[in-house]
Amino acid sequence: MQIAYSVEALVEIVKPDAVRGSTSQVITGIAGLPDAAAGDLSFLGNSKYRNAVGSSKASVLFLPPDYEGEPAEDQCYLFVANPSAALAVLCARIEQSLWPQPEPGIHPSAVVDASSTVDPTATVGPLCVVEAGARIGRGTHLQAQVYVGRDAVIGEDCWLAPGAHLANSCRLGDRVRLHGGVVVGADGFGYEVIDGRHTKVPQVGIVEVQDDVEIGANSTLDRARFSRTVIGEGTKIDNLVQVAHNVVTGKHCILCAQVGVAGSTTLADYVVLGGQVGVTGHVTIAQGVQVGGGGGVTASIKDPGTVYSGNPAMPYHLERRIIVLQRRLPDLFKKVDSMLKEVEDLKKASA
Amino acid sequence: MQIAYSVEALVEIVKPDAVRGSTSQVITGIAGLPDAAAGDLSFLGNSKYRNAVGSSKASVLFLPPDYEGEPAEDQCYLFVANPSAALAVLCARIEQSLWPQPEPGIHPSAVVDASSTVDPTATVGPLCVVEAGARIGRGTHLQAQVYVGRDAVIGEDCWLAPGAHLANSCRLGDRVRLHGGVVVGADGFGYEVIDGRHTKVPQVGIVEVQDDVEIGANSTLDRARFSRTVIGEGTKIDNLVQVAHNVVTGKHCILCAQVGVAGSTTLADYVVLGGQVGVTGHVTIAQGVQVGGGGGVTASIKDPGTVYSGNPAMPYHLERRIIVLQRRLPDLFKKVDSMLKEVEDLKKASA
Amino acid sequence: MQIAYSVEALVEIVKPDAVRGSTSQVITGIAGLPDAAAGDLSFLGNSKYRNAVGSSKASVLFLPPDYEGEPAEDQCYLFVANPSAALAVLCARIEQSLWPQPEPGIHPSAVVDASSTVDPTATVGPLCVVEAGARIGRGTHLQAQVYVGRDAVIGEDCWLAPGAHLANSCRLGDRVRLHGGVVVGADGFGYEVIDGRHTKVPQVGIVEVQDDVEIGANSTLDRARFSRTVIGEGTKIDNLVQVAHNVVTGKHCILCAQVGVAGSTTLADYVVLGGQVGVTGHVTIAQGVQVGGGGGVTASIKDPGTVYSGNPAMPYHLERRIIVLQRRLPDLFKKVDSMLKEVEDLKKASA
Repeated sequence: MQIAYSVEALVEIVKPDAVRGSTSQVITGIAGLPDAAAGDLSFLGNSKYRNAVGSSKASVLFLPPDYEGEPAEDQCYLFVANPSAALAVLCARIEQSLWPQPEPGIHPSAVVDASSTVDPTATVGPLCVVEAGARIGRGTHLQAQVYVGRDAVIGEDCWLAPGAHLANSCRLGDRVRLHGGVVVGADGFGYEVIDGRHTKVPQVGIVEVQDDVEIGANSTLDRARFSRTVIGEGTKIDNLVQVAHNVVTGKHCILCAQVGVAGSTTLADYVVLGGQVGVTGHVTIAQGVQVGGGGGVTASIKDPGTVYSGNPAMPYHLERRIIVLQRRLPDLFKKVDSMLKEVEDLKKASA
Repeated sequence: MQIAYSVEALVEIVKPDAVRGSTSQVITGIAGLPDAAAGDLSFLGNSKYRNAVGSSKASVLFLPPDYEGEPAEDQCYLFVANPSAALAVLCARIEQSLWPQPEPGIHPSAVVDASSTVDPTATVGPLCVVEAGARIGRGTHLQAQVYVGRDAVIGEDCWLAPGAHLANSCRLGDRVRLHGGVVVGADGFGYEVIDGRHTKVPQVGIVEVQDDVEIGANSTLDRARFSRTVIGEGTKIDNLVQVAHNVVTGKHCILCAQVGVAGSTTLADYVVLGGQVGVTGHVTIAQGVQVGGGGGVTASIKDPGTVYSGNPAMPYHLERRIIVLQRRLPDLFKKVDSMLKEVEDLKKASA
Repeated sequence: MQIAYSVEALVEIVKPDAVRGSTSQVITGIAGLPDAAAGDLSFLGNSKYRNAVGSSKASVLFLPPDYEGEPAEDQCYLFVANPSAALAVLCARIEQSLWPQPEPGIHPSAVVDASSTVDPTATVGPLCVVEAGARIGRGTHLQAQVYVGRDAVIGEDCWLAPGAHLANSCRLGDRVRLHGGVVVGADGFGYEVIDGRHTKVPQVGIVEVQDDVEIGANSTLDRARFSRTVIGEGTKIDNLVQVAHNVVTGKHCILCAQVGVAGSTTLADYVVLGGQVGVTGHVTIAQGVQVGGGGGVTASIKDPGTVYSGNPAMPYHLERRIIVLQRRLPDLFKKVDSMLKEVEDLKKASA
């Protein structure tokens, strides 16, 4: 990225509560506190890095109101309620300048069925396929090599990256983002054993992805056996995540990378699943539950807001305690063996 | 999906052993027992949901012969030997009606090498690539944006979803289904360290996928170092599964989502690996072995039909017992410490 | 693959130190020791298979200098310092003969922006997209259906398989290989909670993949929040691996299949992560550390060259010991309970 912001421009964008110090530098980069050099912007997003502010070489720093140090020479502090949020505002501005809206219209190399409906403000990029009966909403952008199946529906202001794939009859709400290689609507994994062979159970439902959902690269969301697999409004899904048929996630959930959720499981709102978590099928997880990375959920979790970890997952504090005790097992075995000997001696003595 | 079936039509399709009750509703949807409303079909596929039948609002229910309740007013029970299988028959009918066979032929936007052989009954969809020497069998359907490498061979009645990718010289049998983004035949992961650098070991074998295999979205099957990586007849593979070079799976195996099988491992027939299972390289797993979700197989499993779980995987009942005892570790440590004190007291007393 | 090598041709290619025996067979295949038949080449790559040499039916075998057996009739031993390396040399030769360099130039079906720069010796295959400002170096080969985003840069002699995807502004060094479906440069996974909604933190950095890196099918490498996600020179990444934003790997690391590395984590040089390993965010792993398959790294590992395993990961020998002791937990609980009883008896007796 190529950026160039004066302090004055930054002040106009993030509207700090206070400014301390000054710099003649034009900001041409963004970096973490220890890595930043003259010409860089940095920020204190996490109070545990507070000690790194004083020695940072950044020319401009976004800091929380309660930070008490003084800027160095040719350095400027901008005090804002939430430095991370201020950076997000700036980054959004940068992103917009990097990414002017694409030209609306259908690229001549795209293959768009005549019976589909593409809003005139939408962009269908090179080598996309839009099948019969599909509908593409206002301002939506299919970047390149995207596939939209028969009768699929995409709302407004969505963005589908190269190679994203929305199978027939599936639906995206508004402002949905699919990153590269996402597959929405492949068949759920269901078979009946008949005469020793796995006979396919047809998967005739759909996937419904609600408004403001973002799905990371190469994640897969399977269509329902019948009815719907649902990703609730505002839920964010990282890369390489598997969501099986008939799963229903609540609103504003977070599924980190490589999570797998098995069939017919339901997540309430604001559930957070750490990286590589697995959740078995046909269970429910209560609102606001958090499961630590690598955890394996093998049964429903009914208490809202609890924190689980481990495989099988259990309440976090219990799991931490068990982990500590496991490391003391070698000692425990020794202790028990020596005690056994002492008890034997006592028995002999008392005999 | 849009469906409309009268009870009479359903009777003709699933041929029930008995009918109890009647309904004037036309069936326009399919739903689980608790979610179903008037106009829906439901079914009892798992006897643990038996109690939910009586309160279901479904207009038609598929039930096993031994179900003893009575239908409500305007509700009809159809008794069939296997309600799940009956539903599968119905869903297959629905699927066919939704998906008329595509027109045979090569879409003008596809890039098909003149030296390849495409059966005249096959369909090569938009923006597919078929390289030199490849062969596409009778009735096979490459949906869109599929890649078929040089000298690759695809049998009859296969279906490859958008973005599926069959690398050079690899082979699919008959009735194979590859979902979106599947990569068959990428290089196996093999290097020799020479002078501190990982030097690539060329991977010049192939992948052979036998008849009636289905592979889920974004799964990856690597070509052999030399010789063949083999997926046995009738094996079903879910999404995001990794099968490394020179793996051989038996017939009718089930690999659930996010499974990883390392190089040169062999699975016998009817092996079932639950979600996120990992299997180390160069081991063998006996016929009919089942490994529970999240398990890690670190050594060969030689007893057919056994059930393993845990990481490292061990016999299921042992693992369950250990999990229970782990949760009692805090108590055990306390107990041992208090006993230690008592033994000390006894020793003093007896001294 | 179709090959045909006389013993004389093999001798010329691998230049053995010594030859023992002879064969009239022409070599038309390569196979493992137990599977090989007349006409096959085999080799002893791992001394644990030494006993399998004597009974192998291979016509030619590559063996280490210290192997002492005698060839059978019509069988020839070629002694080389490193049989695996010799096989790699042969396989490279085979690979070259199978894969003549593609014709340079841009396929007419590719969509290449006029403002991009494609070296005249590079090959842009069918249905690729190369966006504005992108640069493709000398001898690089985009096989088919590849996506190269705006201002992305690819060095010399790279190879991108079908469906590989390099997002805007990201960079590949020289001799980089991306297998099918790899996504380099999707957005990192970062949100701030504002008014109960996950608000996107724009990800405006890039991914930098250095020279001689190979990345397996459907792996995903996210662009940095700002600055760079870096894959160090010579690092090899297997299939379905997730590398989050701002991760930095050292040189010559190995990331096996389905590994996940969370954001801002740093790996030093020569780190090896086994299959399905997860590494939490914001930690560092020292040079040459190896983590066994399925391990979960939850904290920095500071001692170079150590071996870790388990979840949470701990030093390998400790984890092995704990696993053994866990299996003895049922006995321990019994032992403690019976001892408790004895102590009670002793107390009563001494009372």
